[in-house]
Amino acid sequence: MNATDFRLTATDGEARLGRLETAHGTVDTPAFMPVGTAATVKATTPETVASTGAQIILANTYHLMLRPGAERIERLGGLHAFMNWPGPILTDSGGFQVMSLNTLRKIDEDGVDFRSHIDGSRYRLTPESAVDIQRMLGADVSMVLDECTPFPVDRAIAAESMQRSMRWAERSKKAFVERPGHGLFGIVQGGVYEDLRSASAQALLTIGFDGYAIGGLAVGEGQETMFDVLEATIPLLPIDRPRYLMGVGKPGDLVGAVARGVDMFDCVLPTRSGRTDQAFTRGGPVNIRNARHADDPRPLDESLDCPASRDYSRAYLHHLARSREILGAMLLTWHNLYYYQDLMARMRRAIGEGRFRAFAAEFAAEQANGDMEPR
Amino acid sequence: MNATDFRLTATDGEARLGRLETAHGTVDTPAFMPVGTAATVKATTPETVASTGAQIILANTYHLMLRPGAERIERLGGLHAFMNWPGPILTDSGGFQVMSLNTLRKIDEDGVDFRSHIDGSRYRLTPESAVDIQRMLGADVSMVLDECTPFPVDRAIAAESMQRSMRWAERSKKAFVERPGHGLFGIVQGGVYEDLRSASAQALLTIGFDGYAIGGLAVGEGQETMFDVLEATIPLLPIDRPRYLMGVGKPGDLVGAVARGVDMFDCVLPTRSGRTDQAFTRGGPVNIRNARHADDPRPLDESLDCPASRDYSRAYLHHLARSREILGAMLLTWHNLYYYQDLMARMRRAIGEGRFRAFAAEFAAEQANGDMEPR
Repeated sequence: MNATDFRLTATDGEARLGRLETAHGTVDTPAFMPVGTAATVKATTPETVASTGAQIILANTYHLMLRPGAERIERLGGLHAFMNWPGPILTDSGGFQVMSLNTLRKIDEDGVDFRSHIDGSRYRLTPESAVDIQRMLGADVSMVLDECTPFPVDRAIAAESMQRSMRWAERSKKAFVERPGHGLFGIVQGGVYEDLRSASAQALLTIGFDGYAIGGLAVGEGQETMFDVLEATIPLLPIDRPRYLMGVGKPGDLVGAVARGVDMFDCVLPTRSGRTDQAFTRGGPVNIRNARHADDPRPLDESLDCPASRDYSRAYLHHLARSREILGAMLLTWHNLYYYQDLMARMRRAIGEGRFRAFAAEFAAEQANGDMEPR
Repeated sequence: MNATDFRLTATDGEARLGRLETAHGTVDTPAFMPVGTAATVKATTPETVASTGAQIILANTYHLMLRPGAERIERLGGLHAFMNWPGPILTDSGGFQVMSLNTLRKIDEDGVDFRSHIDGSRYRLTPESAVDIQRMLGADVSMVLDECTPFPVDRAIAAESMQRSMRWAERSKKAFVERPGHGLFGIVQGGVYEDLRSASAQALLTIGFDGYAIGGLAVGEGQETMFDVLEATIPLLPIDRPRYLMGVGKPGDLVGAVARGVDMFDCVLPTRSGRTDQAFTRGGPVNIRNARHADDPRPLDESLDCPASRDYSRAYLHHLARSREILGAMLLTWHNLYYYQDLMARMRRAIGEGRFRAFAAEFAAEQANGDMEPR
């Protein structure tokens, strides 16, 4: 195996069924990656994450380089051993987080300086160090360092930012040490400007990556604009490489993006929602704190083969939420992760059977006709 | 089966091996009951609790009557269904908690009035209502309402308090509706005064209960005094009924109390410690936040057949604790519950094999020679 390997096994319209092979195993695509920010998918064990059907998780370079430190994780055998997750791991580059979370940062052409929000100590991320840190972590898929373009933003600023990201992408590629089963993905930037997205995609193709991410979306532009950008960008990307839409999204975002040819996703939504009393169901989102659930003996979704979805009443989950019990966060997180993986599995089946369009209609009807919260 | 059934299968000195049969299953004694205050053993799932070897859990009447309410739990099929714990459940009477946690209470001969700390609404607990609430919850073992005697306290006040508790015990017994597999336990009070303990035990024996608890200990009197009270009290209790030491305790307390003839325990220590970065090990307690664990690749105890004890390094657990990740609380709670159940299982084996004294010496040596925290 050279780098990561990606094979398409079926297509249905723009939607694609594929397999990504990595040093730590295979990922069926379209795939959703639960987010394990600080080397833990919050409020779950790795066994539970695997039991939901997740085959790959994401971890955040920014958080891990600050605590416990990339060198320490490397000494302890890498991230897989450290967090007891034997499957594939994709790490981000730290760029998005240092720019969105850290207010004590200074960016120049070479990279970004910042101070730890934990202890104030100084750090520096460059395209080269970001790739090296991800190597120390042992990531199966590493991401290039990019500058996260704000939204909304003028075209001129978006262009300048994208061009710097492309220069950084080239440096990232040079710094990346090729190893069997380990890949490096480039990131298309350019905001909502289609010509900039096009120039960015072209620049990345010239460099050549194992996969192509679409960055800078789901930042407030709205689903319609996001889908427009996907429709303008994805046809420019090579067919034989995975496409990863970063930081997305809601269930409807996933279905719409798969319909437009996206293969991979990550988002904190299922886990963060699980810790804030929100459950995703076939009938739309449920706020379990709502008083209407206090006496409801029904589980969240007994059709799901998941203990958290099936074995606990809404009344009990409501009680846990009201009592701020940790088990409430654990069960809703578990259910939400299962719901997301089940959604991906349904989409993969639909693509394989050539009925993705019918599935998407079915999904839209489910969301419209379920027992949604009163608005 | 009439009420709960208890059979002694072996004795070794004062230590006893037995089986308690209840409507929801059998409990091997000596037994440790994890505490599920608000219908959840905090930071664990019921499956995990069962996987540690726990056969019976405790739930708190006080918390549950306030939220979500005993009537609601009854409507939803009882506590076993509500919290998805199919095994035996013992409930306390609410007395200890209303007196120790609630500052807006007023006690008289008939019972205790108080206001909810959640919403200020008024409640009343009497010996009769406490028994009835526990019936609504569906408890396998119910406890009589007693007045929790403070410590330290004058003999005269301890005597008066104990005598009221005995009058309440009699009313509790009258109110208790006998059902197969459901038992009611009396509670010996009397503080640290041996003659009062003796009078209390005698009063309870005259009434007649399915088991006898020793209350009002582990409230600051120290281990030596607690053991003195046990030595004075336990010989007065009938051989053919289980003896339950309420709210105890540390591992060394359990070993010493089993040596003195106690059969059942409950304590928040393994779960609360798990949420505050403390792990119990064969080498004594470990504070996982301590910097000495930051690079330690060893698990907490790989000899324990528990994923939380075996599959995660101390370095990782340290990282989770420092990062205040929920998984840290989940894994330490899981490990601590397993450690406690393993300790009970070791004690049961030792009693069965007639070597409890040797086991107790072995346990003391373990605690003294392990890798304890620097003091």
